Amino acid sequence: MKTVEYPEAVQRLILHLKRLPGIGSKSAERMAVWILGPGREALPDFLQTLDDVASGIRACPDCGFFIAAEGCRICLDDERDSGLLCVVEQATGVLPIERTGIYSGHYHVLGGRLSPLDNVGPEDLRLGELEQRLDTGRFREVILALGSDVAGEATSNFVASLIRAWDIPVTQLAQGMPVGGALDTADSLTLHRAFQNRSGVLSL
Amino acid sequence: MKTVEYPEAVQRLILHLKRLPGIGSKSAERMAVWILGPGREALPDFLQTLDDVASGIRACPDCGFFIAAEGCRICLDDERDSGLLCVVEQATGVLPIERTGIYSGHYHVLGGRLSPLDNVGPEDLRLGELEQRLDTGRFREVILALGSDVAGEATSNFVASLIRAWDIPVTQLAQGMPVGGALDTADSLTLHRAFQNRSGVLSL
Repeated sequence: MKTVEYPEAVQRLILHLKRLPGIGSKSAERMAVWILGPGREALPDFLQTLDDVASGIRACPDCGFFIAAEGCRICLDDERDSGLLCVVEQATGVLPIERTGIYSGHYHVLGGRLSPLDNVGPEDLRLGELEQRLDTGRFREVILALGSDVAGEATSNFVASLIRAWDIPVTQLAQGMPVGGALDTADSLTLHRAFQNRSGVLSL
Repeated sequence: MKTVEYPEAVQRLILHLKRLPGIGSKSAERMAVWILGPGREALPDFLQTLDDVASGIRACPDCGFFIAAEGCRICLDDERDSGLLCVVEQATGVLPIERTGIYSGHYHVLGGRLSPLDNVGPEDLRLGELEQRLDTGRFREVILALGSDVAGEATSNFVASLIRAWDIPVTQLAQGMPVGGALDTADSLTLHRAFQNRSGVLSL
C-alpha cells in the first residue's frame, strides 16, 4: 500500500502558510484545504494581490509604515504636529492609535522588539533611522507606545536610554485598568500598576 | 490631517487573508505585516507555490482528495482494500487516519457538513459522487468518520440513511474517553457516551 501524502505543491503551500505568525501545522493544513476548495475561485485575485504588494508596496525609509507609489501619507502630511514622535513596534500599531483621534504627530516603526532568545538585537530594529530623525527633526517629545510585556519594556528602556543623548523628553503609554474592565478579571501585575499610577478622582 | 490607511493593495491582501478559515481582522493584519516584512524574502516562492497549486492540483473526481498530474495515490492503489470506504468531511481528515495505520481501505471526501445556518445543504456535499461509487463499487462496509458535534452527527445520520438503499452496513467511529484523558477534564456528554459504550475489561 502506498503512503498517502499531500501532493508536493500542496505540502509546499502548507509550509508557506505555517510560517505566517500565529499559524501552526493544523491551521496551515486547514487553510490550504480551504484555498484549494471554497477559496479556489478567489485564488487568481489572491495571487494578483500578492504580486501587487510584492512589487508596489515598500516601507517608508523614514517612519517605516507602508507606502505605495504616491509616497508616505504620514511623513508628507504638513498638518501633522512635527514636534511629536510616537515609536511603535510594528506597522500594525499605527492605525489603532490613529483611530483614537488623540494623536496627530509622526510615527516611527521599529520593526520589532528586543528579544535575545529570538536573536533580535538592537541592530535588527530601525534604530539608526530613529537617530537620524532625531538629528534632523525638531521633536519636543518622543512617546514610546511599545508592548507592556517584558520584551516591550526592555525595548522601551533601551530606546529611552538611546534618546537621552538628544535631551528630548521621553514618555510612555499609561498602564492601568482597561476601561470597562472588572476588578476580578485584571491580572495582578496590571492591578499593581493601576495602584501605583492611581490619580485624583476627576470631577465630571 | 490626512486619514492614514494601509495602501490599497495591502488592504486587499488583508481582506484575502481574513477569508481564510479561523483568521480574524487582527490576525490578517499581523499576517500581512509579516508578509511585507520578515516574510518578504519568501514572497516570490510563496507566489510560485500558489500558482503551482492553482494550476497543478485538483480534487480526485472519485474520492475528492487532492491529486497532481500523476493521478490519485489512493484510488489507484491496488493494495488497498476495495471493500472498505471511509467517509470524511474534509481532505484534512485523510492523513490523520492514514497515520494510525489501522485502516487500509478507500476514502470519500464529502467536502463539508450539513449546516442549514451556513446555507450548506445536501447538494453542496459530494453525495452524488458517493452514490455513483456505491453503484459501481463492491463495498462491504462504509465507515463514517465525521465530526462528533451536532452538525457532524446530523451529517452522519443523513449519509447513513442515504446509504440504506444499497444495503451496505454503515458504521461510525466510537465515542468515548480520549486515551490518556483524565476523568475530570472530560465534558459531560463525552463521559455520558463513554458510559453508554462501555465494554468488558480486556485481560492483557
